[in-house]
Amino acid sequence: MANATGGPEIEQLIQLLSRLPGLGPRSGRRAVLHLIKKKEQLMVPLAAALERAVAAVRVCESCGNIDTVSPCGICSDPRRAESGLLIVVEDVADLWALERAGIGPARYHVLGGVLSPLDGVGPDDLSIDQLLRRAPDYSEIVLAVNATVEGQTTAHYITDRLAGTGVTITRLAHGVPVGGELDYLDEGTLSQALKARTRF
Amino acid sequence: MANATGGPEIEQLIQLLSRLPGLGPRSGRRAVLHLIKKKEQLMVPLAAALERAVAAVRVCESCGNIDTVSPCGICSDPRRAESGLLIVVEDVADLWALERAGIGPARYHVLGGVLSPLDGVGPDDLSIDQLLRRAPDYSEIVLAVNATVEGQTTAHYITDRLAGTGVTITRLAHGVPVGGELDYLDEGTLSQALKARTRF
Repeated sequence: MANATGGPEIEQLIQLLSRLPGLGPRSGRRAVLHLIKKKEQLMVPLAAALERAVAAVRVCESCGNIDTVSPCGICSDPRRAESGLLIVVEDVADLWALERAGIGPARYHVLGGVLSPLDGVGPDDLSIDQLLRRAPDYSEIVLAVNATVEGQTTAHYITDRLAGTGVTITRLAHGVPVGGELDYLDEGTLSQALKARTRF
Repeated sequence: MANATGGPEIEQLIQLLSRLPGLGPRSGRRAVLHLIKKKEQLMVPLAAALERAVAAVRVCESCGNIDTVSPCGICSDPRRAESGLLIVVEDVADLWALERAGIGPARYHVLGGVLSPLDGVGPDDLSIDQLLRRAPDYSEIVLAVNATVEGQTTAHYITDRLAGTGVTITRLAHGVPVGGELDYLDEGTLSQALKARTRF
């Protein structure tokens, strides 16, 4: 029998969309049907936007951020340089999350991952050497890595490598998430939140 | 401060991807970061696949299926014509679901929705007239509409309109889903499954 789900062009589009995070084969098919139904409003603009992004996207040679220029908009913003603050993150997604939080002027350094001997990720696979070169230009480096074992190992490794540069090294506070209920928090977070308690 | 999430090209791509079913603003951003990281393996092929699909996709003038040719691969398959079986579905997604189930040779008719006075969907908004014109060529019409109030209303309306054509009209069986547990089924399904019980 003839292929029922609409020819190789549609089949290939389903396969590619299914590889996006958050989508699978079933939701990929739904997405393709939605695209085809909204051809002029969504499918045509999406194809054009992808083409433009493919041509425009750059990885910032200084910090590892993703932008359409290099150095990126953040690295070429003089107000951010004056802050003297360099925030080290694992991934561009973390950088975007901090920017959405409106944390005030700062620059970033994207490591590109964390140290993970099991996955074969060593210091040379991350942008740690570039970080060491940038460090002297800043007064404070915040290690905003994830609170996982690998994240904390990476933070310790970077702290060792930065010893002697004189730059202040800090990390994000642990504590109760805003809006969070104590009852649902793990013991580690609760005990850290109590230790770091502040005056009311 | 400069826009941190990477220029208008990236922002627009996030907005468009967020409009796909199953994705939202947060997962749209994750999807775009994933695309940018896998630029050559995923982003470039996806842009090309979308372009090809935009150019190739057709709605079959006979049955309403989506394909790259019209009449579609199903309508131009002689083995399916011989079956004498026409399956009426609400949507192309239902057609694809039945094809995946490997139901054997049949043709389809995509209604494009169900009657819904509340949403202003009347008979003229569905491809019911086309169905009436196709009906005499088939020996049996299966109304494979969803088991919702609107679906069943639509099925009754179509049955009335087809009265006098002499074609046999059937519907999908109600019963226990394969692999389903009785305990979790609603009373309506259970009572229908008992009424339609078959010899073991």
